[in-house]
Amino acid sequence: MIKAGIVGVTGYTGIELFRLLNQHSEVNVTHCFSRNKSISDFNDVYPFVESGSVELMSFDPSIDYPIDVLFLATPHAQSHNWMKDLVNHKYKIIDLSADFRIPELSFNTFYGCDHGYPEGIGKFVRGFSEIYREQLKNADYCANPGCFSTSVVLGAYPLSKTETGCVNMLVDAKSGVSGKGKKVDESSLYCEVNESTMAYGTFCHRHTPEMELELNCPVLFSPHLVPMNRGILASIYCDNPLGMTQDELSDIYEDTYKDESFVRVVGPESPIKTHYVTGTNNCFIKPMIIKNKIVIFSVLDNVIKGASGQAIQNMNIMYGLNETLGLSQLPIFP
Amino acid sequence: MIKAGIVGVTGYTGIELFRLLNQHSEVNVTHCFSRNKSISDFNDVYPFVESGSVELMSFDPSIDYPIDVLFLATPHAQSHNWMKDLVNHKYKIIDLSADFRIPELSFNTFYGCDHGYPEGIGKFVRGFSEIYREQLKNADYCANPGCFSTSVVLGAYPLSKTETGCVNMLVDAKSGVSGKGKKVDESSLYCEVNESTMAYGTFCHRHTPEMELELNCPVLFSPHLVPMNRGILASIYCDNPLGMTQDELSDIYEDTYKDESFVRVVGPESPIKTHYVTGTNNCFIKPMIIKNKIVIFSVLDNVIKGASGQAIQNMNIMYGLNETLGLSQLPIFP
Amino acid sequence: MIKAGIVGVTGYTGIELFRLLNQHSEVNVTHCFSRNKSISDFNDVYPFVESGSVELMSFDPSIDYPIDVLFLATPHAQSHNWMKDLVNHKYKIIDLSADFRIPELSFNTFYGCDHGYPEGIGKFVRGFSEIYREQLKNADYCANPGCFSTSVVLGAYPLSKTETGCVNMLVDAKSGVSGKGKKVDESSLYCEVNESTMAYGTFCHRHTPEMELELNCPVLFSPHLVPMNRGILASIYCDNPLGMTQDELSDIYEDTYKDESFVRVVGPESPIKTHYVTGTNNCFIKPMIIKNKIVIFSVLDNVIKGASGQAIQNMNIMYGLNETLGLSQLPIFP
Amino acid sequence: MIKAGIVGVTGYTGIELFRLLNQHSEVNVTHCFSRNKSISDFNDVYPFVESGSVELMSFDPSIDYPIDVLFLATPHAQSHNWMKDLVNHKYKIIDLSADFRIPELSFNTFYGCDHGYPEGIGKFVRGFSEIYREQLKNADYCANPGCFSTSVVLGAYPLSKTETGCVNMLVDAKSGVSGKGKKVDESSLYCEVNESTMAYGTFCHRHTPEMELELNCPVLFSPHLVPMNRGILASIYCDNPLGMTQDELSDIYEDTYKDESFVRVVGPESPIKTHYVTGTNNCFIKPMIIKNKIVIFSVLDNVIKGASGQAIQNMNIMYGLNETLGLSQLPIFP
Repeated sequence: MIKAGIVGVTGYTGIELFRLLNQHSEVNVTHCFSRNKSISDFNDVYPFVESGSVELMSFDPSIDYPIDVLFLATPHAQSHNWMKDLVNHKYKIIDLSADFRIPELSFNTFYGCDHGYPEGIGKFVRGFSEIYREQLKNADYCANPGCFSTSVVLGAYPLSKTETGCVNMLVDAKSGVSGKGKKVDESSLYCEVNESTMAYGTFCHRHTPEMELELNCPVLFSPHLVPMNRGILASIYCDNPLGMTQDELSDIYEDTYKDESFVRVVGPESPIKTHYVTGTNNCFIKPMIIKNKIVIFSVLDNVIKGASGQAIQNMNIMYGLNETLGLSQLPIFP
Repeated sequence: MIKAGIVGVTGYTGIELFRLLNQHSEVNVTHCFSRNKSISDFNDVYPFVESGSVELMSFDPSIDYPIDVLFLATPHAQSHNWMKDLVNHKYKIIDLSADFRIPELSFNTFYGCDHGYPEGIGKFVRGFSEIYREQLKNADYCANPGCFSTSVVLGAYPLSKTETGCVNMLVDAKSGVSGKGKKVDESSLYCEVNESTMAYGTFCHRHTPEMELELNCPVLFSPHLVPMNRGILASIYCDNPLGMTQDELSDIYEDTYKDESFVRVVGPESPIKTHYVTGTNNCFIKPMIIKNKIVIFSVLDNVIKGASGQAIQNMNIMYGLNETLGLSQLPIFP
Repeated sequence: MIKAGIVGVTGYTGIELFRLLNQHSEVNVTHCFSRNKSISDFNDVYPFVESGSVELMSFDPSIDYPIDVLFLATPHAQSHNWMKDLVNHKYKIIDLSADFRIPELSFNTFYGCDHGYPEGIGKFVRGFSEIYREQLKNADYCANPGCFSTSVVLGAYPLSKTETGCVNMLVDAKSGVSGKGKKVDESSLYCEVNESTMAYGTFCHRHTPEMELELNCPVLFSPHLVPMNRGILASIYCDNPLGMTQDELSDIYEDTYKDESFVRVVGPESPIKTHYVTGTNNCFIKPMIIKNKIVIFSVLDNVIKGASGQAIQNMNIMYGLNETLGLSQLPIFP
Repeated sequence: MIKAGIVGVTGYTGIELFRLLNQHSEVNVTHCFSRNKSISDFNDVYPFVESGSVELMSFDPSIDYPIDVLFLATPHAQSHNWMKDLVNHKYKIIDLSADFRIPELSFNTFYGCDHGYPEGIGKFVRGFSEIYREQLKNADYCANPGCFSTSVVLGAYPLSKTETGCVNMLVDAKSGVSGKGKKVDESSLYCEVNESTMAYGTFCHRHTPEMELELNCPVLFSPHLVPMNRGILASIYCDNPLGMTQDELSDIYEDTYKDESFVRVVGPESPIKTHYVTGTNNCFIKPMIIKNKIVIFSVLDNVIKGASGQAIQNMNIMYGLNETLGLSQLPIFP
């Protein structure tokens, strides 16, 4: 059995890792870390965990814990200061934060501080499972992608590999509120979010450099917040300079993803909504040609394929396990 | 025109006062106070107010502002320390907080501090408009009731006046989230509240002494939080020791409220839900005899009839105005 | 007093007309029509209307009802068959349905039937109040715009009047569920909509020809459904061929709308969400230049400025009344 | 492997059976039945099922399908007409509808028709897994309980076995909307339910006779609808004639459920909300003594422990399998 540790287990992605790994046949979560000193018992936060059954510890990056893999489900701009210590230990690391996803300069700009261990960035394989599967197989360190990035990159990747790439790409994305994490902030109060849709971070969201890196093109990224717990729907709009037909586009997408367990390409007549993937590690993609534009809708569950589920998928790859272990649930509906 | 000041104008009841008074033909809101030092412009909080159009000031109870009436839309346990200064000024005061609603001893117990001006409690008329209308006509100070208290007291008051009063009264109430106010707290985050119903404060909620005072009987009060912005549905269950019939019960209720503008008694076959009162100062009451129990459902909008609307109704009474001024909206639906 | 009739009063736009006109100082709703034979009493549908207080009648277009203005809050493809009769009566007509908004050919294509009175289309003034105010002043017939169309046209109109117009315009819109109306359909059930965001009708939505007609350019319109009752947020993306600056763009917008009561232009740093307009006839517009794209966010309440509120605004114009009569509410929040 | 059939697979409990059995190591769903003739492909309803991968058949009770167990996830008042045919086949039957839960007379009264096979009622073991485990071990037929009944019976069962039983029992229950099923009805539209709480069926709900049968006492049952997809919170209030202490009450509950996998008794200080059980087969129960009343809160996921999950638990018992097979998920949060 693989022994796993989770740092930040009381956050939304941390608890989701805990929940999903609980159903994984090859993993035991043996170490749970939380910096929240007011929480003495995991049961106080998540009562479905029996009181006293899970010990919460403070994480110390200098300690070589007896684990095989460490998941960092921490806020951004934290692990970059830990990494120079962490590289001294022998366990694999999957970092769900942004700290090792993008080049030093982009990090410094978008996260407002100097990267504490820039030489470490190159040690991390970028964790888009479907794209970097081969590199992940031998990796010790994985920088798990952002939720928006995953939806957009999976949605546009096949197009990005065509002759023209993604031309004049504009993405209008809609996310549920769990994407904001559990930070206590007035703007996340129930009454501030419920019954309202908001635009924010237009063309300057932090996930943009990660998308542009993967897709090798500029991305005009316009995120929105909608009143639901989970789910991202990314609406991707591109030009069609070569006059590609629907059949050609569909073929490219089906061909790219035909062997994938978690990516499903649907036809231009299929409805598409986030319900179809809630509670799963799936990403549904609907590529269309309409009025000579290329339109691609991509939906996923931001907490699973957009975070903790993809982290486990990456762990499965890094350990040579069947990629679907712990991740075979059907969507929960309603 | 009556010149009004609002302390705590950036909270949920404060902004609702501002909104409703904006439609009141006899009132101008001339003074807006907020203790939130990070807010320099009301527009930053409520963008529907034009930037710069409303000046936000710090409130100082020792200052005699040139206003006629002051609304205190402050958190609990604040105005009790201001009142010894405030009585020196000539303006009328309507306190939406709990500080002058209940006897000193109850206040100290339920709000965890010593009352700063216990001799002032008797100066306040309790602001159940339908019950204390006569006393309010000559009042300078009004202690506006709690939202739960209003729904329960209006629902049970006619029964409380019968020979037996309310016998073995048990109230199971369901409230929307705005009742928690705008306090930034993990338990009020969207994802913590959405898609869940919670029981809390069973038989020990702070509004209980106010209900017991008005109804003159013990009240077993069991509140619940449901995922919606506004609305309270109070389900009131009592014994029927004298075997009252439906007709007798209905008559008592209709008789009590027949001249009221804001209380509507509906028949035992009518459906009842909070939608019917959203956005209004109305309270719908459905008294029933079933299986020899007395069951009364009472619904209101917690921010209006449960707070700011009733405060304006009380102001109208205190000034001898038509009680419905500023409060004649039909419910917003959907 | 103006005597008004409402056809389809039990639908979502019908009841909103009823609600808003109830606060209008110059209008009495004297005739309420519903084709729903199962409803004998308006109180059965909207219990806040007292039982028996409003008579519901069947509408007969051949009858000359003693009213001054008739609001048609009917489903699409209904009034086009009535109009040949209705023109014989002397009352003004404001049609909230699509039947007289667009040219015959577009109607036939998008609504799947032959228009029953194509010669009538030209008699209707298109009811974008801010654009056709002069024409409306003398109009007998008004074709009230669609909710999406209003948000998009108000958002893009100032740009459409510039030298280049709207270049490569793409609109990604998000709507609350009341926009679907009260039609009983599996896809509108609570559990089918709640906790999910959906894309639909991409580049082929029925409101598109109305937008293109007003803006005089092709519109790639991509609507989405989000889980909330009310509100539309339209995200409008255009090219910036002449390199317009933020100041130039802001000036154009502020100049266009500087005298408008219901349109507010906000700065590029202002947050924007549908909350800001819920319960009002307002439209907030945020024009931005970012990365050399023109981005415009437009928010409104689809039931008010997107339907019934604009209908009343148009009626006010048609009768030479102050445009804000009955429509001066501040937004309801939370 | 056990071969299972599901009748009514496109409804909310049917799809949940399909979803949960998909993760069950000992079961294959080999037959899916739907009476909905407009659905030709399961993928049209539930796109997460690949198109063509599941054949939907019409169900004919006279056919002896090659299955081991049949789940009836049908509307009420349907299977009672099928049972005289079904008893001729050799497969086990778990009926999630109400048809064989209660005595003939109660069925006729509450479901408005004559029971088509009253002699069959006695053949069914009532499917409260924790109470009828022994009887279920040898059962061929199981009448799976109602969702409200499960929450109330599990919550009150330990008390019902004490010397006095449940005295003056009153239950105020709050349910999410999926409990209404997928029936297309105006009252279930998103805008009719969202942002509102409703009382209905007070003291006359169909699940009452089932509760009274199990608990052997009258139950005053008062249900409410709250705006969320899943979850029931039942608030149970009883007298405490013998002056039982909190410790005594807690002991009785802990003793009753100490060996149960799915029932968790929590202490009087623990918070309780439906979140804690969403997506699981768990029932959390919080028994309290307050002000000399016995108060018990019981929460469960109505679609799982209240329907499909308990049906699978019962199947596991009927086949001598580990009771938790297919049901070991932790709650999904947020």
